[in-house]
Amino acid sequence: MSLAAKAAAIELAGVKNSVKNKALAAVAETLKAQSREIAAANEKDLAAAKKGNLAGPLLKRLKFDEAKIADVCAGIESLIRLEDPVGKILAATELDAGLELYKVSCPIGVIGVVFESRPDALVQISTLCLKSGNAVLLKGGSEAENTNTILAECIRAASEKAGLPSGWLQLLHTRQDVAEMLRLDECIDLIVPRGSNQFVRYIMENTNIPVLGHADGVCHVYVDGEAEVDMAVRIAVDSKCQYVAVCNAAETLLVDEKIAAKFLPAMKEAFDEEGVELRGCERTRAIVDVNVATELDWRAEYLDKILAVRVVGGVSEAIGHINEYGSGHTDAIVTANRQTAERFMEMVDSAGVFWNASTRFSDGYRYGLGAEVGISTNKIHARGPVGLEGLVIYKWKLFGSGQVVADYSGQEGRKFRHKKLR
Amino acid sequence: MSLAAKAAAIELAGVKNSVKNKALAAVAETLKAQSREIAAANEKDLAAAKKGNLAGPLLKRLKFDEAKIADVCAGIESLIRLEDPVGKILAATELDAGLELYKVSCPIGVIGVVFESRPDALVQISTLCLKSGNAVLLKGGSEAENTNTILAECIRAASEKAGLPSGWLQLLHTRQDVAEMLRLDECIDLIVPRGSNQFVRYIMENTNIPVLGHADGVCHVYVDGEAEVDMAVRIAVDSKCQYVAVCNAAETLLVDEKIAAKFLPAMKEAFDEEGVELRGCERTRAIVDVNVATELDWRAEYLDKILAVRVVGGVSEAIGHINEYGSGHTDAIVTANRQTAERFMEMVDSAGVFWNASTRFSDGYRYGLGAEVGISTNKIHARGPVGLEGLVIYKWKLFGSGQVVADYSGQEGRKFRHKKLR
Repeated sequence: MSLAAKAAAIELAGVKNSVKNKALAAVAETLKAQSREIAAANEKDLAAAKKGNLAGPLLKRLKFDEAKIADVCAGIESLIRLEDPVGKILAATELDAGLELYKVSCPIGVIGVVFESRPDALVQISTLCLKSGNAVLLKGGSEAENTNTILAECIRAASEKAGLPSGWLQLLHTRQDVAEMLRLDECIDLIVPRGSNQFVRYIMENTNIPVLGHADGVCHVYVDGEAEVDMAVRIAVDSKCQYVAVCNAAETLLVDEKIAAKFLPAMKEAFDEEGVELRGCERTRAIVDVNVATELDWRAEYLDKILAVRVVGGVSEAIGHINEYGSGHTDAIVTANRQTAERFMEMVDSAGVFWNASTRFSDGYRYGLGAEVGISTNKIHARGPVGLEGLVIYKWKLFGSGQVVADYSGQEGRKFRHKKLR
Repeated sequence: MSLAAKAAAIELAGVKNSVKNKALAAVAETLKAQSREIAAANEKDLAAAKKGNLAGPLLKRLKFDEAKIADVCAGIESLIRLEDPVGKILAATELDAGLELYKVSCPIGVIGVVFESRPDALVQISTLCLKSGNAVLLKGGSEAENTNTILAECIRAASEKAGLPSGWLQLLHTRQDVAEMLRLDECIDLIVPRGSNQFVRYIMENTNIPVLGHADGVCHVYVDGEAEVDMAVRIAVDSKCQYVAVCNAAETLLVDEKIAAKFLPAMKEAFDEEGVELRGCERTRAIVDVNVATELDWRAEYLDKILAVRVVGGVSEAIGHINEYGSGHTDAIVTANRQTAERFMEMVDSAGVFWNASTRFSDGYRYGLGAEVGISTNKIHARGPVGLEGLVIYKWKLFGSGQVVADYSGQEGRKFRHKKLR
């Protein structure tokens, strides 16, 4: 099965953008045409899940009705409008007359997608793989088996009919655990996990295949001594409260001691209004009446209406705290001082470093990337919100006319020109 | 020790190019000034190695005399002339008025360098790390302990005196195996191994840290039916013989059946002159008198004057053979047909795909990349010969003026502009 995916990936690397777009259009059409059948399959999964006492939020994520189908189809249509990420010339050099080197973007190969209950992840990621010319192996949660099966079959059938190589998309059905897939490091080039942070952490710790994603989102807002109090309160509240259950929501607020007496009471008032529980360090509690924060709170990703608050001695201590306790996702500074902001942005080792803006902006849609593969806290390949460019790599194409290296060797050898062509 | 490297990496991210270049110049100066002491330390290692009966080629690699010191210093001087890989603006978007997003290159963090006997690898990689703003932990072979110790101390002392943060470069001395370093996945972001292919394969199989490099170099030359025989012979000979012990030397020659009768005798004559042992498939042996190739030969990286030869049914079979048996390093086609060449270059899944040129061109210097970190057969991050850009990643810097996401939510919310600034 994975060998078939590898073979399909090779074919797919040569498929033109027009064919890929035709296939994407056919997929959207098929999903719409089959929406009743898809919803019915999903009803079966939902019924079984209710019987099995699946928790409420999981049930909600499992649900895939006609409205959700319309959503994923809108996503596919915007994907069609994006330019082809494959075949871009990233660099070109004339090494010598008639010897030209091109660095050209190309698909990565076979992407393994592992997801929990949300069936929309199946559609999103597999159409992103299609657009970027990658074969995809899918492994979903067993609770969504009926939904995943019909979705994968719709996408496979429509796209193959439109000219994609057979085997480019496959759903793994085996009873074995997700662990099965994670061992296929011979034929899977990249794993994209979609699910809870515990789930993603499990994936990352149990495979040798590179993983594109993030486990934790312990984001910080640091309110500098030179911050405007109103702006700082607004940014803190938005970062924490605008949507508490997501990875780019703030979990810890760091406050410069120089502004603590002024900022903390205003901050408390605003968070009290939002019903947020505050947990503070001793210095915070000397100024406002909040619960006690312990060492564990600095590492906590609450994903809930709870915020840890710590008073620090200035921007250096804030940077130190963030680099020690943070998850390298997104961290913001509020200050009127550009130099302080630039230092923070240079030295905080995170995918997103923001000045006077909410951490909640850390998102592919808001960044204008179009489709989002996910948010990566990796230090190599792709970092932060990742668009289609995270699913491509490049190869070096050398166009010669019979040149050999011996001609360029020794004192008398030809010299390279190394002339940049673009 | 690794925590100190992490802390130093944070500082280093903010160090200006002028300071890094000053430090590099100081390193070169110190190495020259200390060249007698370095050569003396190396003599000690060489004497111990000879006593320990280290094999001849290993002894040669261990040798680090004044000529080698001059070489690495020349490398450092050309590194100084390269532009700073850090702080490049890779993309910029105005999300809205006063809300600008920049994708900016930055150091990766802490690089672990693991190398066998060659002490020049220590100097090369650590100065590449310096230029790209990365902290570096070094672990060399015990047989080079005296040489490595004085080299690391020269680099450390000179660069710290020039303003680099203390702890940015550290040599691991512990008796524990290289395995020790490979477990530090909490604080090392990338491993760059330098050594034999067995050594690199061992590293890759025994760490969760991303590894930048290649284990095997099973490179191919495919002679298409529409090739010019003279050119094909010249390219095949250069690819195999110009330097047999390196990863970009060809190990297997694939020959289109349409040209076999004409090409194989000419090829055999040329390789006989070079003293290369040929091992052929049955169809090859029906035309020329060569030894038998077995399945093992298709996977062999001889690094020696041996070449496997196989007759195939055309470009598709050649592509299939290369994708099955190759190592994704560098593969060449010789043909007069551009369409055939383009198909080959699209569907061969290798870092380098060459048309009418020797595989030996696959090299950072020949590509004009300047300094080379290594050659990567990875499918993510960096592929092929990797210059300084393989040691950097990027972060997203968002410059706001108090914006919050709530303002952009709902029907009445502000709309993003997403205007490309560059």
